[in-house]
Amino acid sequence: METISEARAYEGVQGVYSHSSHTTGCDMTFAVYMPPQAKYGPVPCLWYLSGLTCTHENAMTKAGLQAHAAEFGLAIVFPDTSPRGDKVADDEAYDLGKGAGFYINATEKPWAPHFKMEDYIVKDLRALVQNAFEVLDSHGITGHSMGGHGALTLAMKYPELFRSLSAFAPIANPSQSDWGRKQFKAYLGDNEALWAANDASLLLKEAGWPSDILIDQGAGDQFLELLKPESLAAALAETRTPSTIRMQEGYDHSYYFVSTFGWDHVAWHAERLGA
Amino acid sequence: METISEARAYEGVQGVYSHSSHTTGCDMTFAVYMPPQAKYGPVPCLWYLSGLTCTHENAMTKAGLQAHAAEFGLAIVFPDTSPRGDKVADDEAYDLGKGAGFYINATEKPWAPHFKMEDYIVKDLRALVQNAFEVLDSHGITGHSMGGHGALTLAMKYPELFRSLSAFAPIANPSQSDWGRKQFKAYLGDNEALWAANDASLLLKEAGWPSDILIDQGAGDQFLELLKPESLAAALAETRTPSTIRMQEGYDHSYYFVSTFGWDHVAWHAERLGA
Repeated sequence: METISEARAYEGVQGVYSHSSHTTGCDMTFAVYMPPQAKYGPVPCLWYLSGLTCTHENAMTKAGLQAHAAEFGLAIVFPDTSPRGDKVADDEAYDLGKGAGFYINATEKPWAPHFKMEDYIVKDLRALVQNAFEVLDSHGITGHSMGGHGALTLAMKYPELFRSLSAFAPIANPSQSDWGRKQFKAYLGDNEALWAANDASLLLKEAGWPSDILIDQGAGDQFLELLKPESLAAALAETRTPSTIRMQEGYDHSYYFVSTFGWDHVAWHAERLGA
Repeated sequence: METISEARAYEGVQGVYSHSSHTTGCDMTFAVYMPPQAKYGPVPCLWYLSGLTCTHENAMTKAGLQAHAAEFGLAIVFPDTSPRGDKVADDEAYDLGKGAGFYINATEKPWAPHFKMEDYIVKDLRALVQNAFEVLDSHGITGHSMGGHGALTLAMKYPELFRSLSAFAPIANPSQSDWGRKQFKAYLGDNEALWAANDASLLLKEAGWPSDILIDQGAGDQFLELLKPESLAAALAETRTPSTIRMQEGYDHSYYFVSTFGWDHVAWHAERLGA
């Protein structure tokens, strides 16, 4: 692991690091915020997965979560959204290839060699974070848009790894959305049965979630037709999953929406992770 | 005035606007955050002046001040840092020309026709904001680096316009710094006596400031030699100006520093502006 930069923030440290990932077969950049409480011992850890076109940097600079992490004593990990580098396949569209890994393991050409973002998060980066930073084995996960999809699906697939779960404007039903069908077809192939295991609304009915879930969604979001919060809302109700899903009047899809409700989410995770 | 974008943030509105400025002779872009309290009547107004290379956008997206403005019920104005457009003179260096207006009125070629950022702020944009937004005639001013210089000098030059004053890591003594001498020579010419009227440490001894001042400065700032906080600290003490100047251990020049102490500054202004 190489340190790219470290800056003091809210008495803690906002760092940016890179490492060579065996899983994605390329160098990966990620950011970690360590709160001041980490000086006195390991702290719980919240994962924030970003949306389409983002890198590790967007939420790190725009979401304002570090203030809340310092208040509650949580670390926050900001991974990148795809493999990177000249060797990695890409597409001209903003929503396929680099910046659009969808937090799944691609099985199809040309994506399969590097687009293993599911394994990257839960294996490579998880192990690295656990070893290199003062974090407890008490992790939560959240994310925005494509990252909200990633948070929901990775938590439900790996409940042994994540104890708390929330999402901001998640792509909630990708197998029924143009933010999902195109990518699942490219990365996973034509067998739609495989898609269901990567669709939060379907996965919830299949696998469930052993704890509770917080979802915030802007009612003025310009991408509501693609996000399909109604599918997730229905699934949460049908499965009787303890949950809070809030349609926030007037808010759009931007980081102003994320930052506005950031405190609520960090507090949610802090309470459940023992921070 | 044209609306470029508006997004809900902390129950208020973060907008970006453009207008044709008579003073700078070009279209100017600026941002305003209006807090939720503005629904019920006009609110006090804080000006945030940005540093070298910035536009209206940097602090708007990275400083996290909107949360505090919504807490206290203040508007925040984020002006650009220079005139813009193909007609406007520029220099290859990052610290001269576009993005480096220094909040002064240039008198020298080729800068004089457009580089009138002092008048732009205190005349054009002030009048526009006062007319187009629900703000009281109760304004404060702050800023970062070159913008801290701008906040200090504009407040001292126009105490009738600004009732409260603070700065983050200001260029505190530009007439004795490479962040200042080069620009003052280019914009104002060789007569160093003219420079003094645009140097906070000198202006304070000449003009004074009728209220109090809050300054935060990272003790780990990579630009301390250029910022020269010691000159301003000495001037504040010599003039017996009510003031708080804090050297913050470990903090650098980044927006993590600004955001960490943003609440303190907004609270400072809110108290003095009657928010």
